[in-house]
Amino acid sequence: MSDSLNRSSTRTVFKIRYSETDQMGVANHARYFDWFAEGRVAWLEERGERYAKWEQEGWILPVVDAQCKYLQAIRFQETMEMIIHVKKFNPRKVIFSYQILKLGETDCIATATTSHVFLNQGKVRRLKPAYYEVFTRTPKRLYQ
Amino acid sequence: MSDSLNRSSTRTVFKIRYSETDQMGVANHARYFDWFAEGRVAWLEERGERYAKWEQEGWILPVVDAQCKYLQAIRFQETMEMIIHVKKFNPRKVIFSYQILKLGETDCIATATTSHVFLNQGKVRRLKPAYYEVFTRTPKRLYQ
Amino acid sequence: MSDSLNRSSTRTVFKIRYSETDQMGVANHARYFDWFAEGRVAWLEERGERYAKWEQEGWILPVVDAQCKYLQAIRFQETMEMIIHVKKFNPRKVIFSYQILKLGETDCIATATTSHVFLNQGKVRRLKPAYYEVFTRTPKRLYQ
Amino acid sequence: MSDSLNRSSTRTVFKIRYSETDQMGVANHARYFDWFAEGRVAWLEERGERYAKWEQEGWILPVVDAQCKYLQAIRFQETMEMIIHVKKFNPRKVIFSYQILKLGETDCIATATTSHVFLNQGKVRRLKPAYYEVFTRTPKRLYQ
Repeated sequence: MSDSLNRSSTRTVFKIRYSETDQMGVANHARYFDWFAEGRVAWLEERGERYAKWEQEGWILPVVDAQCKYLQAIRFQETMEMIIHVKKFNPRKVIFSYQILKLGETDCIATATTSHVFLNQGKVRRLKPAYYEVFTRTPKRLYQ
Repeated sequence: MSDSLNRSSTRTVFKIRYSETDQMGVANHARYFDWFAEGRVAWLEERGERYAKWEQEGWILPVVDAQCKYLQAIRFQETMEMIIHVKKFNPRKVIFSYQILKLGETDCIATATTSHVFLNQGKVRRLKPAYYEVFTRTPKRLYQ
Repeated sequence: MSDSLNRSSTRTVFKIRYSETDQMGVANHARYFDWFAEGRVAWLEERGERYAKWEQEGWILPVVDAQCKYLQAIRFQETMEMIIHVKKFNPRKVIFSYQILKLGETDCIATATTSHVFLNQGKVRRLKPAYYEVFTRTPKRLYQ
Repeated sequence: MSDSLNRSSTRTVFKIRYSETDQMGVANHARYFDWFAEGRVAWLEERGERYAKWEQEGWILPVVDAQCKYLQAIRFQETMEMIIHVKKFNPRKVIFSYQILKLGETDCIATATTSHVFLNQGKVRRLKPAYYEVFTRTPKRLYQ
């Protein structure tokens, strides 16, 4: 599994919640974006950063573009894994990509990307260097 | 319908969204609390107040207690009406009650109450008199 | 406003709910996809169809691809309008596009597209002709 | 911590997600009910049962009554623990209670109860004995 993991990627494992299903009997497509947000939090965590702290200091990373391809449906109580990867970054912007798989399987269930700007006091700004450096930092694996 | 409306109550009409269903094929029980929140917003609106403005001025009304009885299931795309009523209030606290019905029917689908304190700068305080007076104000009906 | 409305488009008006905000103080980006789903329901409704009925008959329209560009933030209690448009369709697939604006303003707040297949008993199929015909039907405006 | 754990209780640990916050800057009160639902799933899991399987066999446990007291606010990225306990049960009904604490602390953040009936083919029925027996079964701890 970890083949797909490299220095700029992080892996998380999570279960589909009942409240994430809709009457189609599968996880609702909009909920995937909540999981991606948690993936970014985990990506930062593996590099020693808490997104909650970034926000307290005024740095927020709003989504400016999001896209997701849904390849297979996911059901309640299934265990999924997600690979989060930084695709591109510069001092004002970062693009994350995501792959979701059923745990222990190799078929991709969904692929996605989200683009974010670094915002501070309502304006896009060059991210503070101490934070920007996170994009080149070697992760300390929290999830194997 | 409007028998149940009096000076301290407000009525809203809304439709069940697809994203509010779960795989039981009915509206998820937790989503009802989102509707109650919108009911409170409408209740204030009929009395000339915007909750968004209260928050900007530092007055927030967190829920300290919530309860709901679910009498019948509600389905996607059904149109519901809700009667929101102030049950009790004092300068530091307010209790709202809610009844949900299918539009044009008399059977109650759900009944609920939520209790709120008036919080400002992290502390329960006596609500500013100009705002407190809303609880005795006569509503100007926005929804018939 | 209605310049942008044509035979294949529908317009809805909605308010941002408190439960749709997150701690960034604006509507959470994932919630937009819930609004798009309601837009599709309204689009069908203006053409005399209930999506709830399509589902009961076994026709579901899962999202296979979704993308959204977020141009400006949206706040709680703001009133928005959305133009929903069928961009492409064939007997097995339909692509909707969406534009969100603040009511009465001309700046676009968000643009999006979602692609859907016509699924019945777990397989992509040619949509039943009586339903397929909806894509060429003239709408009866429910929202002006 | 585990003092409060007994044969009829289960403990879970979870983190507050960004999408669960609202613009009050804390976890939205309605989201707690999603966590309680996950708590019930975990409670069954520790007793060898999958709720997904119960549903496939036609047994659903809709909420007929829910109440929650909110004692302290919870913030994004905080780690919480939840004690789920069966308070009462009979062949047609079960009442769960919940306590939420910050991980490693003793103050209660929220307490709640939810009541459920055993529904099959649209009617309240006596739960199948093989399932009913779960309420007296000794759990196999999945979370310490």
